[in-house]
Amino acid sequence: MTETTDSQSPPAHAADRLIEAIERLAAPVCVGIDPVVERLPAVTESGKDPQIAAGAIRSFVLGLLDAAADCVPCVKFQSACFERYGHRGIAILEELIAEARQRNLQVILDAKRGDIGISADHYAAAVFDSAADRSPHWLTINSYLGEDGIQPFLREGRGAFALVRTSNPGGDALQRQKLADGRTIAECVAGMIAAIGRDFVGKSGYSALGAVVGATRSEDAAKLRKLMPQQIFLVPGYGAQGGGVQDVLPCFNVRGRGAIVTASRSVIYAFEKDRTDWQLSVTEAAKRFADEIGSAVGLR
Amino acid sequence: MTETTDSQSPPAHAADRLIEAIERLAAPVCVGIDPVVERLPAVTESGKDPQIAAGAIRSFVLGLLDAAADCVPCVKFQSACFERYGHRGIAILEELIAEARQRNLQVILDAKRGDIGISADHYAAAVFDSAADRSPHWLTINSYLGEDGIQPFLREGRGAFALVRTSNPGGDALQRQKLADGRTIAECVAGMIAAIGRDFVGKSGYSALGAVVGATRSEDAAKLRKLMPQQIFLVPGYGAQGGGVQDVLPCFNVRGRGAIVTASRSVIYAFEKDRTDWQLSVTEAAKRFADEIGSAVGLR
Repeated sequence: MTETTDSQSPPAHAADRLIEAIERLAAPVCVGIDPVVERLPAVTESGKDPQIAAGAIRSFVLGLLDAAADCVPCVKFQSACFERYGHRGIAILEELIAEARQRNLQVILDAKRGDIGISADHYAAAVFDSAADRSPHWLTINSYLGEDGIQPFLREGRGAFALVRTSNPGGDALQRQKLADGRTIAECVAGMIAAIGRDFVGKSGYSALGAVVGATRSEDAAKLRKLMPQQIFLVPGYGAQGGGVQDVLPCFNVRGRGAIVTASRSVIYAFEKDRTDWQLSVTEAAKRFADEIGSAVGLR
Repeated sequence: MTETTDSQSPPAHAADRLIEAIERLAAPVCVGIDPVVERLPAVTESGKDPQIAAGAIRSFVLGLLDAAADCVPCVKFQSACFERYGHRGIAILEELIAEARQRNLQVILDAKRGDIGISADHYAAAVFDSAADRSPHWLTINSYLGEDGIQPFLREGRGAFALVRTSNPGGDALQRQKLADGRTIAECVAGMIAAIGRDFVGKSGYSALGAVVGATRSEDAAKLRKLMPQQIFLVPGYGAQGGGVQDVLPCFNVRGRGAIVTASRSVIYAFEKDRTDWQLSVTEAAKRFADEIGSAVGLR
């Protein structure tokens, strides 16, 4: 098989491409790549040296990509795990994004960037302006700064997932506050995202502006699903973070579409439980994850 | 004069140190370092090559630091302007932060990071875990994720400015929405920041958890000042972004303290107007800026 690049493989719309990749594998799932050196399969004391640690993370992630590429359509890199190694970590992240793309994976960079006007332009350039085969398809962004903090990220062929409802306990303090009109703050943000996203809808019916909606409160998710019919939901909180199948179902529409569930630790550290061939453990965990969610939403 | 490092120069509390630096120069101001290659003093066509552009930015910022170090207590690096050059840009940013610290400047990294739990830990490590003389004193963070997205950044001797009210037009859409209890969303965030910051107050009476409060709506700033008496306000929006002296005054308390105003383009590109020695223009603009704000709040 020849290498597939964007220029050869339509659709070029970020949402259409992601939906197509999900349906091809009947797997609305994403593996989160949040590596920490302490949990790698084979780390010695030398892992405490930052340069050696960064190298160990690089090798581990290359192994992960090989182990998961045939089972899932998408990976999500947690930028912080690479940023912590400074410019060396960023160089490794750039390389690994290219490696993921070579394996025909859709790539989300989870960096939760958010700034205004010209600074948002710079962040968009930072993420998307490198050679097309080395940059992610999607970026997570923070929507607290409003529309002018979001528009710069909506570039042709790329997409952004805006934070709407996060899965952490502290998220409630702000996001569930009630406005005078009865909506929660998260619902207010959802309305803004739906309105901005309307101009960026592809043939699939989904927008290149998606939404991050955590899996921990399914009643909130159901409301948000109604408020954002054209958004693909990126759903963290499954697996190690405590969410189960029932918690993520409300993020999907009635036809089992419109969301992609992400799990990290339960997949990438699967080898900790059985201690056999670590890549085999990861592959099996990724398959199990894809099967759990794919079956639950009726794609399998 | 010997080089000053943290270990030799108390106070070690981030807010105490910043307040002391401001009072030493009677200058509650910060120069924002947001360089774009197109506006540098001497850029040829070769500036279009990313590697050459990054090098040109490095030289320019070194010149800026020399030009401004004696007039202002603090500089703020806009991370996006460096991230856009990938790992090379990050290496330059790391070097320039060290250079700023060698010039005895307080350093804010304006990266608006925000994530939950373990990922926030990684971001805090990314920013603060390098050698003490190479990492910033303060980081800007996004507070939409709540308390567990804020606590990881509050490390001993370091500080964080949480976004409360931004100066962009789009910020209004969300931040000025009214809650059922009559407060705006920004005021609700302010209450959260004041409460979390209470545990991190130094001898100066100010907390290591500060607040970003834009200069564009002075009536909002006055309310926020009352809600956050222990927060140092980092105030963008002055100068090129449209705010004037009257707009920033409500961010200060009655004794002319508790805020630091930041300006970037009006200082770092001051040479565009007179086209003489560029560093001299920057020095003069920085002095003028310090004098305008220092006089207006009664420190001079």
